Amino acid sequence: MIIKQKTTLSACLILMLYGLALRPAQAADPLPSWNSGNAKQAIIGFVAAVTDKSNPQYVRPEERIAVFDSDGTLWPEKPIIFQLAFILDRIRLLSKEHPEWKPEQPFKAVIENDMQYLATITERELMLLLAASHSGTTPNQFFQRVNDWLATASHPRFRALYKQLTYQPMLELLGYLRSAGFKTYICSGSGSDFMRAFSEELYGIPREQVIGSPPEYDFVETPEGPFILRQSKISTLNQKEQKPINIQHYVGRRPVIAVGNSDADLQMLQFADNRRDPALVVLLRHDDAAREYAYDQDTAMLRKAAQERGWCAVSMKKEFKKVFSFEK
Amino acid sequence: MIIKQKTTLSACLILMLYGLALRPAQAADPLPSWNSGNAKQAIIGFVAAVTDKSNPQYVRPEERIAVFDSDGTLWPEKPIIFQLAFILDRIRLLSKEHPEWKPEQPFKAVIENDMQYLATITERELMLLLAASHSGTTPNQFFQRVNDWLATASHPRFRALYKQLTYQPMLELLGYLRSAGFKTYICSGSGSDFMRAFSEELYGIPREQVIGSPPEYDFVETPEGPFILRQSKISTLNQKEQKPINIQHYVGRRPVIAVGNSDADLQMLQFADNRRDPALVVLLRHDDAAREYAYDQDTAMLRKAAQERGWCAVSMKKEFKKVFSFEK
Repeated sequence: MIIKQKTTLSACLILMLYGLALRPAQAADPLPSWNSGNAKQAIIGFVAAVTDKSNPQYVRPEERIAVFDSDGTLWPEKPIIFQLAFILDRIRLLSKEHPEWKPEQPFKAVIENDMQYLATITERELMLLLAASHSGTTPNQFFQRVNDWLATASHPRFRALYKQLTYQPMLELLGYLRSAGFKTYICSGSGSDFMRAFSEELYGIPREQVIGSPPEYDFVETPEGPFILRQSKISTLNQKEQKPINIQHYVGRRPVIAVGNSDADLQMLQFADNRRDPALVVLLRHDDAAREYAYDQDTAMLRKAAQERGWCAVSMKKEFKKVFSFEK
Repeated sequence: MIIKQKTTLSACLILMLYGLALRPAQAADPLPSWNSGNAKQAIIGFVAAVTDKSNPQYVRPEERIAVFDSDGTLWPEKPIIFQLAFILDRIRLLSKEHPEWKPEQPFKAVIENDMQYLATITERELMLLLAASHSGTTPNQFFQRVNDWLATASHPRFRALYKQLTYQPMLELLGYLRSAGFKTYICSGSGSDFMRAFSEELYGIPREQVIGSPPEYDFVETPEGPFILRQSKISTLNQKEQKPINIQHYVGRRPVIAVGNSDADLQMLQFADNRRDPALVVLLRHDDAAREYAYDQDTAMLRKAAQERGWCAVSMKKEFKKVFSFEK
């Protein structure tokens, strides 16, 4: 290939100009909604270390796995987890065709909006509601229902759509980690199909990187072709020790970064912090009653482990410059 | 930004030269080990259609999922599946420390290399061997054992290492699909950890894109930190209708391309061919006794379905220019 010297020089100039144009973006704060402080510094320092080939903490790209809990970590979980709000709305809609539900708990509480009863609903009752509201559909039909609901359903306190309530600092953290070569996963106790309906749009996380509590599926053949159908039983509840177990099943390796907020996340965070390899473990503390909710006292186990192991505790009150994107 | 006209022109020239340098590669045959014919044409035609935005068959990048069976689809499965060869070698090694195994089936057959017995081994017996040979290890220890075995174990007929027996045309197909934006998955009845040990090195498929039959895992905490331990029980056997069900669990959507070779792949192939959306279903026919094995007659169900539904049947004898990379 014959290229004149001048052409090469001009090309270099262009590459340099491109470089200059890119530099401000790279130097810009990757976490603008985080206040300066220990947490932000720890995150940026860890990412710099594990992506630097000359650093002993270096982590190869294929090992860069980051897992995030969902409820209370990526968006709120109060007054009730958003999936429950979705189920309740659906049960109320269906109740017109099911008069037999009216005197029967937990349906009665749902129809009468008895929040006191619903606040302490048992797992078995929740499964009953889930089965009554959403079994027998295909995953695609279910995704559509979730998205139809998200398009209009709004939070009782914030007067915003549920889908607008993703934590802005966490969105920035997800994007920052991806730009550093991390594969970001959601690993949550919520239903897999519920989260997969919006994980891409809300978090930039594809469906296959969502680990949740899946329903059992059936594969059925019909004259119109085969279908996967959602059954009424939950396959496994993805919480506590089931989180690391499912991460091993889905990902096949230890996560290098784990972010959670409740005692049900403890084992997932311990799995990341294996005491042998580089790990960043982040614990989100809900201590901001003014902008969100304060229920930090409910996570005694997690806070104890965080203190003993020196995990990165993030106070929403202190570290989050803003909580939601719509804040001024 | 101020750039002189001449500089811009020079840059265009460079881009053109780059373009010329690239063109031969793009125009080159993406499947050089495939003979020209219906199968190759169908594959290339399908990929062209689903990646062309103006084509009614267009498939968005996030939906481009391709699933491949492993044994008999990506490498041979005769005289026995390679994972069984691995297990047998391990049992023989361990048998020195387990004199109690000697009179007991299926261990007796393994120790005495009774291939007649082993050829018709039951699923329960296989699980017994698997449990005796490989439970109680961490996944990482197990990956290491598989790779140690692969480094030296060779196939009784081909006199090559097992790891050299990947089908060259299938390696090309995997690479071609990835270059067209497909995410390639293995979905096989073999153990997940067995395949994850080498999926990246042999096929360029990361661990998280391997769906197999996983063992049950335990999460245990020790003074040295937490560990995942492999248990003796297989969690679910990934074959027949379990394949589409597990694809839904792991990927969250229908695969657009499915490639298999045995009746245990039938439902996975049906799942791809849902009769409503674009699908390429490929059936590999083992009909080449000279270069590999001929046991096409064992897959009556699959061949019947392929004929009825017009799936792309690939005769190894006719369509594969070479089977293994080491052939001349």
